Amino acid sequence: MPLVTLLTDFGTADGYVAEMKGVILSMVPAAHLIDLSHDIAPYDVDSARLALARCWRRFPPGTVHLVIVDPGVGTQRAALAIASGERFLVGPDNGILSPALLHPGARAVRLPVPADVSHTFHGRDVFAPAAAALARGDSLESLGRAVEAPVVLRTPEPEKKPDGWIDGVVIHVDRFGNAVTNIMTLHPGTVSIAGHLLPLSRAYGDVDRGEPVALLGSSGLLEVAVRDGHAAEVLGLVRGSPIRFRPDR
Amino acid sequence: MPLVTLLTDFGTADGYVAEMKGVILSMVPAAHLIDLSHDIAPYDVDSARLALARCWRRFPPGTVHLVIVDPGVGTQRAALAIASGERFLVGPDNGILSPALLHPGARAVRLPVPADVSHTFHGRDVFAPAAAALARGDSLESLGRAVEAPVVLRTPEPEKKPDGWIDGVVIHVDRFGNAVTNIMTLHPGTVSIAGHLLPLSRAYGDVDRGEPVALLGSSGLLEVAVRDGHAAEVLGLVRGSPIRFRPDR
Amino acid sequence: MPLVTLLTDFGTADGYVAEMKGVILSMVPAAHLIDLSHDIAPYDVDSARLALARCWRRFPPGTVHLVIVDPGVGTQRAALAIASGERFLVGPDNGILSPALLHPGARAVRLPVPADVSHTFHGRDVFAPAAAALARGDSLESLGRAVEAPVVLRTPEPEKKPDGWIDGVVIHVDRFGNAVTNIMTLHPGTVSIAGHLLPLSRAYGDVDRGEPVALLGSSGLLEVAVRDGHAAEVLGLVRGSPIRFRPDR
Repeated sequence: MPLVTLLTDFGTADGYVAEMKGVILSMVPAAHLIDLSHDIAPYDVDSARLALARCWRRFPPGTVHLVIVDPGVGTQRAALAIASGERFLVGPDNGILSPALLHPGARAVRLPVPADVSHTFHGRDVFAPAAAALARGDSLESLGRAVEAPVVLRTPEPEKKPDGWIDGVVIHVDRFGNAVTNIMTLHPGTVSIAGHLLPLSRAYGDVDRGEPVALLGSSGLLEVAVRDGHAAEVLGLVRGSPIRFRPDR
Repeated sequence: MPLVTLLTDFGTADGYVAEMKGVILSMVPAAHLIDLSHDIAPYDVDSARLALARCWRRFPPGTVHLVIVDPGVGTQRAALAIASGERFLVGPDNGILSPALLHPGARAVRLPVPADVSHTFHGRDVFAPAAAALARGDSLESLGRAVEAPVVLRTPEPEKKPDGWIDGVVIHVDRFGNAVTNIMTLHPGTVSIAGHLLPLSRAYGDVDRGEPVALLGSSGLLEVAVRDGHAAEVLGLVRGSPIRFRPDR
Repeated sequence: MPLVTLLTDFGTADGYVAEMKGVILSMVPAAHLIDLSHDIAPYDVDSARLALARCWRRFPPGTVHLVIVDPGVGTQRAALAIASGERFLVGPDNGILSPALLHPGARAVRLPVPADVSHTFHGRDVFAPAAAALARGDSLESLGRAVEAPVVLRTPEPEKKPDGWIDGVVIHVDRFGNAVTNIMTLHPGTVSIAGHLLPLSRAYGDVDRGEPVALLGSSGLLEVAVRDGHAAEVLGLVRGSPIRFRPDR
């Protein structure tokens, strides 16, 4: 039973996701479709990239990930299919597939875009058919010609300062208002954010309700939360907000 | 593996969709359930009708579509099951199933509503059991008696004016703020909307960011967008807003 | 084909649900995943408990329900797996699983939390693996040691007054704005709410559009709605708002 996951910024109410599901199932009726999300903010390639980074390798080998946030649909941006780490991915060449492209041994091909397909919905007319083809066992190479330099986006690296502090940024605010940063650490230390100095704690419950807490999130990245609250609102944090961390001596 | 899709205005947080899924799976444990959407705006029969129109025939023959936006639940409105175009559909007789009813050869039956079922949730007590029955192979005719004149809703037709312009309306605003209209054209021409005169373009990327663009959407209907923006907000468009199109000579 | 349902307050956009799905499918690739909801309001244990109460027994015997609203993640709160009424449930020991715990014959075990797992995401590292283990046929007892007194939350009981009225409260406002209460009745009578006296009606359509209506909802609980409107907004109702009911003589 081939697995095909879907990750988009389409929402579901307009029927666009429904159309893609129909296309896939009409080609591979036994496919098992798994919704990852359709609630990525419109045009937010970076959030989709981060969500994909968290999960793409957790699925069984052979899984096909259909990933579409595609403001450039209908332009000259390439349409990609990728084989990487025993999984397949399909989506636009705008960096959204970077987690798989950066994995050792990744191969990418450029999907042909027939002249007669919609210029506004390659998800239905180009990407879903390619995902279905991979799900039924077609080879990557049968889908298109190798792409040499696909677009790659990377999370910015934190910067180590002479004063012992590490300068980072908020890279994502999640549904709970938790601010995920680009700082990774295995050491205890002190976090400076939005005028607060916080020790590195272990769990949300280590502080009182409504209090800010810094800890390691589930990807190993430093994260700032407010217990039972919304840290981003309470502390005024958005993507790109600065954060500093100083490991203990 | 029978396919059953679900399209509702229920949201998911209240557990209503969960109950329907349980009912279907308890009758047909091998059914493959496919969420089309549960985010149709409450009571918005027309949006569900348009979403259904986009996708119902894209699924494999034999698929059962469970479609419920049902402000008239508990009244005398009929409960329908339909066989049309090799697919089945189940839902209230309020026009929501029009795309399938208008398809040549459609047959509709009226589902009996037992006296002891909830008057507020036919989705769980009438429609889900009927969808499951169809999914396991029961015939349409075994479910009820033929209905002669089910409710049919149609998208309004655009009007051709003596001055060469075609008068249409916005029929849907999608998640990206794109305004989908009822005008279909195969010719180049000029669009007049909200005080703007726009040439018919090919893709969103044909204009600069933040600029309005008129093009053919993925259903072949004329659509007005703002590149990387929200056309409905920028141009003040809602369902029913007027739009004009003049094909080039 | 083992069924695993998912009910959380995670939303989907951050990729947390996607990670859990990957974990389950990598352990049991043939599992059929069913989304119940990921739109429970953040931290709202009680809404998840009520949604679960509606649906958990409607699924086929053997179904595994993964239920996670977990503000206490990383603290000493236990992680539970439960066998009850021929189904299995997995989730935190904060009352969310009460509907199954209160069912006769329920057995609960405490899942071990390995020292090296994330302190912020037991959904991925503790609960999803336990759900997958149950889905592939592991016994409940193989997962942990029996728990004696798990946390149980109950919907408050309405109170019968000497004057013949029954005092209740709104326990849930649903997506349509309908206010579900804790009053159950099989008798006709009069409802007093927000300054209105309403007869107990049969269906939403029994009143004119925009008018309030009291009726029995689909769980048999008294419910207050506004036809084609949002009762909670119109009448100023929230969870906990008082309501009274007087059965007819």
